[in-house]
Amino acid sequence: MALLDDNRLFAPDPGLRTLARALYDTVRDLPIISPHGHTDPQWYAENAPFPDPARLFVTPDHYVFRMLHSQGIALEALGVPRADGGETEQDPRKIWRLFASNYHLFRGTPSRIWVDHALQEVFGITERLTAASADAIYDQINDCLKQDAFRPRALFERFNIEAISTTESAIDDLKWHRMIRDSGWTGKVVTAYRPDAVVDPEFPGFAANVEKMGEMAAEDATTWQGYLAAHRNRRAYFMEFGATSSDHGHPTARTEDLPQDVAAALFDKALRGACTDDEADAFRGHMLTEMARMSLDDGLVLQIHPGAARNHSDAIMARFGRDKGYDIPTRTDYVHALRPLLNAVGERPDLTIILFTLDETSYARELAPLAGVYPALKLGPPWWFHDSYEGMMRFREMATETAGFYNTVGFNDDTRAFCSIPARHDVARRVDCAFLANLIATGRLAEDEAFEVATDLAYRLAKQAYRL
Amino acid sequence: MALLDDNRLFAPDPGLRTLARALYDTVRDLPIISPHGHTDPQWYAENAPFPDPARLFVTPDHYVFRMLHSQGIALEALGVPRADGGETEQDPRKIWRLFASNYHLFRGTPSRIWVDHALQEVFGITERLTAASADAIYDQINDCLKQDAFRPRALFERFNIEAISTTESAIDDLKWHRMIRDSGWTGKVVTAYRPDAVVDPEFPGFAANVEKMGEMAAEDATTWQGYLAAHRNRRAYFMEFGATSSDHGHPTARTEDLPQDVAAALFDKALRGACTDDEADAFRGHMLTEMARMSLDDGLVLQIHPGAARNHSDAIMARFGRDKGYDIPTRTDYVHALRPLLNAVGERPDLTIILFTLDETSYARELAPLAGVYPALKLGPPWWFHDSYEGMMRFREMATETAGFYNTVGFNDDTRAFCSIPARHDVARRVDCAFLANLIATGRLAEDEAFEVATDLAYRLAKQAYRL
Amino acid sequence: MALLDDNRLFAPDPGLRTLARALYDTVRDLPIISPHGHTDPQWYAENAPFPDPARLFVTPDHYVFRMLHSQGIALEALGVPRADGGETEQDPRKIWRLFASNYHLFRGTPSRIWVDHALQEVFGITERLTAASADAIYDQINDCLKQDAFRPRALFERFNIEAISTTESAIDDLKWHRMIRDSGWTGKVVTAYRPDAVVDPEFPGFAANVEKMGEMAAEDATTWQGYLAAHRNRRAYFMEFGATSSDHGHPTARTEDLPQDVAAALFDKALRGACTDDEADAFRGHMLTEMARMSLDDGLVLQIHPGAARNHSDAIMARFGRDKGYDIPTRTDYVHALRPLLNAVGERPDLTIILFTLDETSYARELAPLAGVYPALKLGPPWWFHDSYEGMMRFREMATETAGFYNTVGFNDDTRAFCSIPARHDVARRVDCAFLANLIATGRLAEDEAFEVATDLAYRLAKQAYRL
Repeated sequence: MALLDDNRLFAPDPGLRTLARALYDTVRDLPIISPHGHTDPQWYAENAPFPDPARLFVTPDHYVFRMLHSQGIALEALGVPRADGGETEQDPRKIWRLFASNYHLFRGTPSRIWVDHALQEVFGITERLTAASADAIYDQINDCLKQDAFRPRALFERFNIEAISTTESAIDDLKWHRMIRDSGWTGKVVTAYRPDAVVDPEFPGFAANVEKMGEMAAEDATTWQGYLAAHRNRRAYFMEFGATSSDHGHPTARTEDLPQDVAAALFDKALRGACTDDEADAFRGHMLTEMARMSLDDGLVLQIHPGAARNHSDAIMARFGRDKGYDIPTRTDYVHALRPLLNAVGERPDLTIILFTLDETSYARELAPLAGVYPALKLGPPWWFHDSYEGMMRFREMATETAGFYNTVGFNDDTRAFCSIPARHDVARRVDCAFLANLIATGRLAEDEAFEVATDLAYRLAKQAYRL
Repeated sequence: MALLDDNRLFAPDPGLRTLARALYDTVRDLPIISPHGHTDPQWYAENAPFPDPARLFVTPDHYVFRMLHSQGIALEALGVPRADGGETEQDPRKIWRLFASNYHLFRGTPSRIWVDHALQEVFGITERLTAASADAIYDQINDCLKQDAFRPRALFERFNIEAISTTESAIDDLKWHRMIRDSGWTGKVVTAYRPDAVVDPEFPGFAANVEKMGEMAAEDATTWQGYLAAHRNRRAYFMEFGATSSDHGHPTARTEDLPQDVAAALFDKALRGACTDDEADAFRGHMLTEMARMSLDDGLVLQIHPGAARNHSDAIMARFGRDKGYDIPTRTDYVHALRPLLNAVGERPDLTIILFTLDETSYARELAPLAGVYPALKLGPPWWFHDSYEGMMRFREMATETAGFYNTVGFNDDTRAFCSIPARHDVARRVDCAFLANLIATGRLAEDEAFEVATDLAYRLAKQAYRL
Repeated sequence: MALLDDNRLFAPDPGLRTLARALYDTVRDLPIISPHGHTDPQWYAENAPFPDPARLFVTPDHYVFRMLHSQGIALEALGVPRADGGETEQDPRKIWRLFASNYHLFRGTPSRIWVDHALQEVFGITERLTAASADAIYDQINDCLKQDAFRPRALFERFNIEAISTTESAIDDLKWHRMIRDSGWTGKVVTAYRPDAVVDPEFPGFAANVEKMGEMAAEDATTWQGYLAAHRNRRAYFMEFGATSSDHGHPTARTEDLPQDVAAALFDKALRGACTDDEADAFRGHMLTEMARMSLDDGLVLQIHPGAARNHSDAIMARFGRDKGYDIPTRTDYVHALRPLLNAVGERPDLTIILFTLDETSYARELAPLAGVYPALKLGPPWWFHDSYEGMMRFREMATETAGFYNTVGFNDDTRAFCSIPARHDVARRVDCAFLANLIATGRLAEDEAFEVATDLAYRLAKQAYRL
């Protein structure tokens, strides 16, 4: 018995399946390039064992706990830490049992595939997770976690990760990355420059964050020029720890290219906490263009992740804080929003801007037409809620005809769930091979070309776009 | 010869078809739960014969007459009653011939499947409806309608309807429901509380409607507290006639949770006819939250049906009135619109809010992410123009990965066309089985689990969500 | 070896493929009706040879040069003419080699299918275009172009074009069309009335254009009544050269039906260059309704092509001018925007309004519901970026269930690339047959009806809707 079908995600038609299988066999064992994600560098630095099955699979995974919560299970019962210090379940076995006895909720979801993949491929489990099997599976995972072969670095190597990027705040001291570097371990773990805390006037503690950045950069970051210099300094510092990209998570895709004196005045207002909502949005948007200009000098790839309405529930935000599954995608305009940035730097072939969306309606209508003409612009893979079989298929079906394959950048797993990394890359490789098989079978792509594209999508494009 | 292919709506791939067929065979004969619709309770109360084929199939079915009209056929020629008292075709055979000779217009539409299903399964007709066959088919249906076996209650039982809900205005006296109850007939026909006429300041006769509600409830409904008390009273009255849900058809998904004094002031303005468009919208939005709070007390399920631009043609509205096929879906935002309601009651697992949409772009982007985290929120099935093979398939493909199956509520037929009820449930059951078969065949769902889900989608979820 | 798979675009399932093939075999050789496009009437008038492969395939085709440019190739290197008079590559062989060595960029795009089709079917080439094959293929095409059989009229006849429409500005003198008519050649080439230059107050030279129109029409077009009379006169002139349609490319779908004095006042402001953006938009919108009223008199079909944000890059606009691949689709509302027009003329069955969209989200939500009820309204085929396998399939899947087939109008190639005309019609015929095969196989359409629909979609509907 197995949890996973060896031909999963390939079309059932025998001809298509044979083609997809043949393509997949050439890419399944390629090394993983993970150019964007949220794994914790402390894992690789300390290489300590993961604590228990619940804290590996349930508590940190917002896909998992949001689904359980949607059916009335309190986040406290899942051990999700309280921001207000209140009590939560501490017994990992109890949390695991709750997860197991509600595992049917994940039918038809990508979480089901990711968890089953990790259970089978990482922990050798072949029995379905249910209330009945919960304890035995808990014990089996728990036994594994005590072994050295299941420590982070060993798994990193077993997962065949050639390079992985974490994401750190611009005011992070990168001590874990330093510790990794100093350890002599050869695993390639790089950081990415995430300046939300110092470019978003509405970010909690914005002014203090800017001040801290100034101290770290030995610049007077309270002046506009000093602030820009501090960014340049911090970017260089991040590049010492392997960074090849910056990352920007804004509520909208708005960009601006303001005159320098207007930008400087907005910055002053932002420091004083005096920006209106619109001014804060304009400042964030202008900083994307400034970041792009810095990228022209230092070569960092610029990633834009817009369109999430964060912390939708006030009650959950108050009790549990951010990132608790209450970020909801919103409709996002790109055509007008990106115009200032693209007018400023979009024609530069030496710049790479990678754009993500949570609004699939923009794939065919806006993003593919934009990426299909501007030299600087590339499309990131399906993101977040769309990082799934159907989501990936829709992306290829809606983006390829106008943007082609070579204005896309392969796959990002974007995950905090370490054991899901091989699962997610495997899903992406399978879906892309299934898509290519269909192109061959419908006479839209020659077979020899499809094999080349399969490797491009699984490995080469990510490596090239992110300069890893 | 048959009008219906026995394997219709299953994928042509032999493996998929066998799987879909096997799933379908377990659900095809399950009783029908019809928790939301617009059949006329007078039918069940009086149990009189349906008058003739035209008034059964053409005149009351907006899907049918809008398509005929789109090709230049006047609504008058189809016997659609004039609001202005003008003449319309009275000869049902003439109307039927017009329908028959234009039946090719329905190729590829769900109406074609529904009508063919009713012709074959209800009336035993196996010849295609055309100009040539029109009279013979007319006669065959007409002969049937004279028999007792074709009266409403007999058909209700033959259709294997376990429970059906009609929809009545908050100021309806429910006399037909009383007559059904008093008749001793055991068919389960319940009502649903539809208060648009008394919560929408822009509804014709709003103030008079509120006054009437007050009289019916023996409350002074012209005060804010009396008005709320009258709602509670009417909801209790509806529950005496089996109501388990309220239903709300608003132009937008806007909700509000206003301070009570602000709401009371808006109510006063509404009664005086002094609300601006925005204030009317805010009042409607606030009343959704008030209704949800009442639901926490009385247990009614709250249904929200937003997003139709009603009565698009002034000329048709003037000549024929409402509900003449001129309601057009519009783009609808849910993320911001529902936030006040969800902040007020969304975390309550003892409340069920069922949300519908006419804007499919919101399935994956907004609705599945919301229903996939808020305990109170569930997704209604594809609605109105999307109640079709492609529409249902898109819903499952776009909503399942983030919301799963268990944040959806099975199928609603939502129909006024009595004979289409079995047809519509059959379509939904077939499409869901086809979708599940594909999940099995692509390794996304185990076969034993798919059988359980098939029954959940065909029967159990609707029964449970609507407490029927 | 062949570039084209004989069963391309048909589903791989053997049953589906057999059905699709059978349908396609009945329509593949039907004459081409090309009721909307942008081929140059000078070609047919002068019947001069096309100059060279680069100027046939690369330089004039925005699909081709935008994709090459998106990967960093300068438009100058592709021979795209500079608006500012700057230098561009003049050697067609160099341009061709650049195209050939980057031909892999078109994998999975419709351009690849169109170009391969033209290479094989028009020029007899069976080897894939690559850097290695570039020169040989260049020579083979170049040799062909010198032969009489490859002149425009010969190709027109070989392509089996029954009728083609070009598009000319309202102030064009139609001299090429006159030359075609006077030549005695029997190829049916008609014009279409495109008045953007004289109905859009923001069009460069609007007032001068209006003045010119007045001179051509012998009317004082500087008064509102004279302006309308001049339109009527020009429409009649265009009809002398076969025009059966007008065409309107507006940034939005906004329509207005203003009182005549308000329209007249806006017109005066427009002539003085004094319109605000909103007034210009209102004037354009009102002119659609005026055009529709003229159509009621003269019978021209009204085509609306809204929703492109033109000339997105300032730098490209300054250096190369309009139509350089920088027009990007935007989200477009139809429900509210079209209401004034539809209220004015939408109920007229003697009028045909053909609506196009660049926003696929409107197919199922807005356009099919509107076209499925208003007698005057029909849906144009997938347009521009959506004129592709996936785009056409999405159109049929999203529009058919509510609009049916008979509120659509067959296919338009909309192209400037002459050799792509047979390729594009072939793609449309194949996709429609694949769609119909799936309807048959899933029991949604009888086989005999599908054959009738196949011919309707490939030939009859375009001919009928455009009165060609």
